[in-house]
Amino acid sequence: MQQQQKASSGMIRAGILGGGQLGRMLLQAAVNYPVETWVLELDPDCPAAHLCHHFVHGDIKDYEAVLAFGKNLDVLTIEIEQVNEEALFELKAAGVTIIPDPEVLRTIRHKILQKEYYRSMQLPSPEFHITRSREELIALSHLLPAVHKISEGGYDGRGVQVLRTEKDLAVAFDAPSVLESMIDIETEIAVIVAVNQQGAEAVYDPVEMRVDPALNQLDYQLAPAQITTEIRNAAIELALKVVRGFKTAGIFAVEMFIDKQQQLWINETAPRVHNSGHHTIEACNSSQFDMLWRILLNYPVGSTSLKAPAALINLTGAPGESGTACYEGINVLLSMSNASLHVYGKKETRPGRKMGHVTLLENNLRLLEEQAHQIKNQIRIKAG
Amino acid sequence: MQQQQKASSGMIRAGILGGGQLGRMLLQAAVNYPVETWVLELDPDCPAAHLCHHFVHGDIKDYEAVLAFGKNLDVLTIEIEQVNEEALFELKAAGVTIIPDPEVLRTIRHKILQKEYYRSMQLPSPEFHITRSREELIALSHLLPAVHKISEGGYDGRGVQVLRTEKDLAVAFDAPSVLESMIDIETEIAVIVAVNQQGAEAVYDPVEMRVDPALNQLDYQLAPAQITTEIRNAAIELALKVVRGFKTAGIFAVEMFIDKQQQLWINETAPRVHNSGHHTIEACNSSQFDMLWRILLNYPVGSTSLKAPAALINLTGAPGESGTACYEGINVLLSMSNASLHVYGKKETRPGRKMGHVTLLENNLRLLEEQAHQIKNQIRIKAG
Repeated sequence: MQQQQKASSGMIRAGILGGGQLGRMLLQAAVNYPVETWVLELDPDCPAAHLCHHFVHGDIKDYEAVLAFGKNLDVLTIEIEQVNEEALFELKAAGVTIIPDPEVLRTIRHKILQKEYYRSMQLPSPEFHITRSREELIALSHLLPAVHKISEGGYDGRGVQVLRTEKDLAVAFDAPSVLESMIDIETEIAVIVAVNQQGAEAVYDPVEMRVDPALNQLDYQLAPAQITTEIRNAAIELALKVVRGFKTAGIFAVEMFIDKQQQLWINETAPRVHNSGHHTIEACNSSQFDMLWRILLNYPVGSTSLKAPAALINLTGAPGESGTACYEGINVLLSMSNASLHVYGKKETRPGRKMGHVTLLENNLRLLEEQAHQIKNQIRIKAG
Repeated sequence: MQQQQKASSGMIRAGILGGGQLGRMLLQAAVNYPVETWVLELDPDCPAAHLCHHFVHGDIKDYEAVLAFGKNLDVLTIEIEQVNEEALFELKAAGVTIIPDPEVLRTIRHKILQKEYYRSMQLPSPEFHITRSREELIALSHLLPAVHKISEGGYDGRGVQVLRTEKDLAVAFDAPSVLESMIDIETEIAVIVAVNQQGAEAVYDPVEMRVDPALNQLDYQLAPAQITTEIRNAAIELALKVVRGFKTAGIFAVEMFIDKQQQLWINETAPRVHNSGHHTIEACNSSQFDMLWRILLNYPVGSTSLKAPAALINLTGAPGESGTACYEGINVLLSMSNASLHVYGKKETRPGRKMGHVTLLENNLRLLEEQAHQIKNQIRIKAG
């Protein structure tokens, strides 16, 4: 751990736990504000390392590292849930503003607690059973097919398995998990809700996700979601209920399913900026990253209205390609007047790794979808 | 000077001479691209210092410093003209891509050469005489009133004086300068032209400037300029002639006067991103900063079309206030759904110092101008 310097500028001292692409885009938005920034992260070549005032080399899961990192800061946030909670509770007690509140972070990052939260709030989320071990899971094999989610450490599709038959039990998580009944999904949507330190709320329009079944990752995403006004309003209402129950400032992405009977189900919530909000950089006056700075720096919330329909295409590492990242097809993309490229600066590509994204704004929805497909097929991230 | 590291990433290694707000916003735009960034600058607390991969402490006017800085880079650009040219010529000879070409940089940064360039190209620019000393100037006192511009080192209104009567000669520059005849200005406009490494051009809509006479700095700026189509087209044509004559890739702001007879006059050209293009961050799909990266990284040029009329308000240090910057009125601004704040992160404010800017997008021009005035009056940057 490096020695930290006290800010000499009168600017608010803000720290981020984690230095991935979310931290990178958060720091890109910080450029607009009077703030001095710190990042704690183990990888000195991470996407965010070079964009903060003070990069601190350390493990966000380590109690001592997080405590030392946060103790001279005014405000602290996360870009990934897997951080040391105990240190955050201690920092909060010492007067550091933690956004979101560590209590909420704990609830969310333990899938078991998160599911129990929805149940206690009587919010619609798929039925579930807790399985502490593979043995406990086997005893519930009559519930298959079902979705098995590890309680701690899941991220970006990792830590989630569909168990179709008893055969799948052999590879199931042998750790505290939840076994969820499967929803007959018609559409996946997400609603991002922001709450500032004064309690003012801002909600982004629901977005609709198309999932790549092979990678269990977002394929592309449409904003606004192509749903009825009734479902849209119900989804926003539901997201607000989830977030209001947390009683903390922060930004939250509430992921939901719409089933074939047009019922809404909460899938899960992220207590941070989220992949489902990347289009807001171009599509909204206040992006999700801008919004989080407004929250951290105790400013008013920003405008979430959508300038135009937007598609978001994740750029992931091509199958079978591992090594120094090399971007194919970028010139075609950069010749499109309505496309915006975001590369995350990761040196190494791996199959399915999130390496960047593209945002498209286009009023003609059919054209928007065509262009999204085109980009998905044109850009390949290979090992150079 | 710090030791430089070779990029280990396969990314293009790009350097910027200077670390002010232009460098800051340029690096903010670099976040979207696969590029490894270097900044050379004397002030380790400058606005751009913390936003690059490698900050190199050194003097951009120093031959050795610039040479050492550039020798391991693929491409080098500037964010201020006052750099060591000789080192750039040497780096160019050694195979480093310099954008803009050092020859053009020299022509532009020496006002005498710049004026001679316009004359040689038969481009309309105010009549001028060269004055190498105050003595030479006094011999031309019959030409007063006139504008006296120092040949080297002028920036942001510094280095330009209006000499009205012989009394003013006592404070005139006693150094190589140009004495320009005064234009009966009706409007000041600027046209930004981009040329990529393949020679492809992109032109931003002319913008109209309102100058604060006390500070000789931009008050606020409107895009597009409220001029006739005929003058608009003539201004674009003229800007293209200026830039085509340079025969180099780069981004250029051509500042012009429109006189009371509706004639266009070239005032001066900046061979870099420019204050008159800051609105493009929000108002265009490809901002001037994004555009320069496209040029540096050998990509296609981006789209310059204007999403909506835009006003740009510079936030300058309040008169009589020197010290740690403190921003008054920010909450009102951040509650406006069409305003975007950009703070430059300068620790110290001084009267008239450029500390940030605000961009407004609004289709109702009258409202846009009202809001611009409102912001100008509401935000005060004081010593805290």
